[in-house]
Amino acid sequence: MSVETVPLDEALHRVLASDITSNTDIPSADRSAMDGYAVTAEDTFGASETNPAELRITGRVRIGEIPNIKVGRGEAAAVATGSYLPRGEVDAVVMVEYTRVSGDRLQIVKPVVPGQNVAKRGEDVKKGQVVVKKGTRIRPQDIGIIAALGVAEVPVVTRPRVTVISTGDELIDPGERRKEGKIYDINRHIIKAAVLEAGGEPLDLGIVGDNAEDIRARLKQALASADIVLISAGTSVGERDLVPGILATLGEPGMLVHGISLRPGYPTGLAVVDGKPVVSLPGYPVS
Amino acid sequence: MSVETVPLDEALHRVLASDITSNTDIPSADRSAMDGYAVTAEDTFGASETNPAELRITGRVRIGEIPNIKVGRGEAAAVATGSYLPRGEVDAVVMVEYTRVSGDRLQIVKPVVPGQNVAKRGEDVKKGQVVVKKGTRIRPQDIGIIAALGVAEVPVVTRPRVTVISTGDELIDPGERRKEGKIYDINRHIIKAAVLEAGGEPLDLGIVGDNAEDIRARLKQALASADIVLISAGTSVGERDLVPGILATLGEPGMLVHGISLRPGYPTGLAVVDGKPVVSLPGYPVS
Repeated sequence: MSVETVPLDEALHRVLASDITSNTDIPSADRSAMDGYAVTAEDTFGASETNPAELRITGRVRIGEIPNIKVGRGEAAAVATGSYLPRGEVDAVVMVEYTRVSGDRLQIVKPVVPGQNVAKRGEDVKKGQVVVKKGTRIRPQDIGIIAALGVAEVPVVTRPRVTVISTGDELIDPGERRKEGKIYDINRHIIKAAVLEAGGEPLDLGIVGDNAEDIRARLKQALASADIVLISAGTSVGERDLVPGILATLGEPGMLVHGISLRPGYPTGLAVVDGKPVVSLPGYPVS
Repeated sequence: MSVETVPLDEALHRVLASDITSNTDIPSADRSAMDGYAVTAEDTFGASETNPAELRITGRVRIGEIPNIKVGRGEAAAVATGSYLPRGEVDAVVMVEYTRVSGDRLQIVKPVVPGQNVAKRGEDVKKGQVVVKKGTRIRPQDIGIIAALGVAEVPVVTRPRVTVISTGDELIDPGERRKEGKIYDINRHIIKAAVLEAGGEPLDLGIVGDNAEDIRARLKQALASADIVLISAGTSVGERDLVPGILATLGEPGMLVHGISLRPGYPTGLAVVDGKPVVSLPGYPVS
């Protein structure tokens, strides 16, 4: 398995080559999950519209700021979504919607329980936790969790290079002028798109005629440049069955199977030549 | 809607901008769907292993060749999968597996019915038929059918350019050194991946601090370069709610909605500025 390192933003749909492990807790400290006031929950018990809890505002913790204020019983500090909680005995956040402010006097009209509206240290991810497993095909949400760790590059499996060849004297390529008796090559274009969709890198070696020497030369070229070779047509049981014999001469062990029964039942072959898989596919479009 | 023309092999997952209509029948003439012999079906009726039908082989039609031979009653011509049927009264193909050959004598051990193993002219696609509809997100099989028509380039909808901005003094980017009180920007990276996955072209305008002038300048830059602007964070109901006010000054009609209730219930806003949609997204990672 060949591995390369790519920027995180280019890793979408690639296959992760190692586990991604967190080297930190996320959040790295207790944070507010709401805009409001950090308080000791017990100070709010029984609070209501008609009988609000009254606390003194001692300061404010801004987003991204290390809190230098301390909040004790009977006190509160303004916090924003994502900001750290102040030091002291705070254990909950009252949403701003349930408060009334006058100078440094804070009225709370709805109680909170300990832990309410607080994102606890390590709540999302614990230090040492595997957050994305080796072998994962990376999705947007995986990119998110890797970004959260501060990781900007990831090891991914190199895309397999898949060489695609079509054989057949009757084939011409889209864009060429229509000719009586010729048909446009379809398989190579479908296969290239399917390879792309599956995360591979297609290498197009074009159309080769029904001639053993030409097919042999093209297969040698394909084996030299690709991890996998797909060759379409030329594998029917009729007169044009040239590929298996050619493969046998190119390397060991050559053709393994010929005539795998795939629906709708056309022949398909599988060979290995010096460690590289070669798959021969039926050529007729309706296959 | 802006349209561009791309090579067929680069059209995977793009959105087709016009119907693709066939200018031909496929197959363009009756073809054999098997390797075997083209015959008049009636000549094979009643054939069996013990009582084979006997016909005279008058020639062979090769793949890609315009047939110049004619086959009458009591006669047969060798055909390959995909080759045209010879002229004359042939209406079926006997698979080679059900034949025995000796010189120009052909024995058939299993009857065929008219039309058997024949792909009729226009059977797959009729001339004038719409084969892939405008608006289709192109799949490998769509590329196949378009290739079959000989079409090498297709009109597709231009990828929408989606500008992505994060706001927040607390944000740093993956790869930057971890700092107390700062958190890594996640949303921008998830959003870029999601835009890519949805077929858009993400344009990354980075992180901007919680400063009205900076946000205003970045939004102007975004509106100048993109079809859609996504701005994350800065839209909570607390102290940092700068985006709606800024959008109102940038163009008509400005903010349409603020505070769409999406699970888990964080505020999200939708604006249109001089015809371009601007979506503001919640900034807190757990959103």
